[in-house]
Amino acid sequence: MRTDLISSRENPKIKYACSVRDSEKQRAADGLFFAEGPKLCLELAKSCTPRTAYATEAALAKTPALASLNPMPVAPHVAEKLAGTKSSQGVFVLFETPQTDPALLDSARRILALEGVQDPGNVGTLLRSAAAFGFDAVVLGPGCAAPFSPKTLRSSMGAAGRLPVVHTENLPGTLHRLRERGVTCLAAALYHSRPLDEEGRDFPAGVCVVIGSEGQGLTDETVQACDAAVRIPMTDRVESLNAGVAGSVLLWHFRGV
Amino acid sequence: MRTDLISSRENPKIKYACSVRDSEKQRAADGLFFAEGPKLCLELAKSCTPRTAYATEAALAKTPALASLNPMPVAPHVAEKLAGTKSSQGVFVLFETPQTDPALLDSARRILALEGVQDPGNVGTLLRSAAAFGFDAVVLGPGCAAPFSPKTLRSSMGAAGRLPVVHTENLPGTLHRLRERGVTCLAAALYHSRPLDEEGRDFPAGVCVVIGSEGQGLTDETVQACDAAVRIPMTDRVESLNAGVAGSVLLWHFRGV
Repeated sequence: MRTDLISSRENPKIKYACSVRDSEKQRAADGLFFAEGPKLCLELAKSCTPRTAYATEAALAKTPALASLNPMPVAPHVAEKLAGTKSSQGVFVLFETPQTDPALLDSARRILALEGVQDPGNVGTLLRSAAAFGFDAVVLGPGCAAPFSPKTLRSSMGAAGRLPVVHTENLPGTLHRLRERGVTCLAAALYHSRPLDEEGRDFPAGVCVVIGSEGQGLTDETVQACDAAVRIPMTDRVESLNAGVAGSVLLWHFRGV
Repeated sequence: MRTDLISSRENPKIKYACSVRDSEKQRAADGLFFAEGPKLCLELAKSCTPRTAYATEAALAKTPALASLNPMPVAPHVAEKLAGTKSSQGVFVLFETPQTDPALLDSARRILALEGVQDPGNVGTLLRSAAAFGFDAVVLGPGCAAPFSPKTLRSSMGAAGRLPVVHTENLPGTLHRLRERGVTCLAAALYHSRPLDEEGRDFPAGVCVVIGSEGQGLTDETVQACDAAVRIPMTDRVESLNAGVAGSVLLWHFRGV
């Protein structure tokens, strides 16, 4: 246990941690992200490198495993400032953002691609489901919530750290390259699409599932860059499914587990 | 357009509507529930009876279809008081809570049963998925979020109004009665369970999918009251799935569409 207790809310380290928590620009510039809560931080530590950790004495006493993160002790009122949510439970860690080599897409067999999915809860849920169902990589096109923002981390439960995430500004271009090596690209779309039941599951060269935003769906350009479109058959009792649910059902169908 | 504009936030009708919004006790006593937002209210009006509606002039101008609800006009600062969320968009309706005859369970072929699912977002998501995937009825056991609370309504997108919901304090007893008429009751459980892939989809006398809370799962008594248990196979990259997602994948597998 380190003894250099941080007792000032104005401590520059604390202010810096808050700026990483709140600003995507700061996160991108410094290659760091902010996570809170003992469960999430310990889960992330399995796959990401912790740079700096902070914990209250009460949190350390409650979860001794946190000592492995070598946290600096903070006073309760400092923890209150660091806490973005009630579930922080006095534990905060700055991790190094994993760097993903885009060349990784050249060997991935099951890929999730998102376009314009702005809601961090939906992006996090889909990352979590993709990791659970044996997908190898995720492509984030324009307009998606940041994978390492606090909200996305919470709903992904740290899956973002265990699944390579590649960013692209040109999703149709990325899909074309995947198709060139035989990967079947399937757009989730309500119209001009086949029901999921009728879609096979056997794609020897790989499959890429492409999902758009809840309200807008995919852009025409992206749909046209795909091999085909699929939809989830539904009764007429609802207008749509929750976006995280719809995407997860598709991921389940094309699973690798 | 009615002209009796309500301009006081202390108007007793407005105060009453807020109490229905905020209090499950009030909702239960009066058989009413509160919904907000033009899309949700118009969706609910297809299956539920509106008792009293309120709308700003701006909301009526933007969505003329709201006139069918015969809303009383309210001033913007009154709408602000009624609004539980930013997405209310100046429209608020008290609906009569649909009364479900428990005998309906005697003929249902696809049933979703929940136990201890406290999170209204998860209950709403599962109601929405159940309606989408052709389930006939929902049983809510002890400890579940109320189906007609504002939060559940938002995540169900009104599906609660289109799917009969039966409450029970004795879920094992309800499951026993279902099994007596040949319905196969399947508990979602991580242990002592079969992977979903190996579970058939053909249940001539019906199937009931039983789902517990994200943290706790089902009680032993409820698991024992089922015919068998199923789990969703996953990689070891995540500890669990989002509860709404996990339940929805099960509902998709046992779908009637």
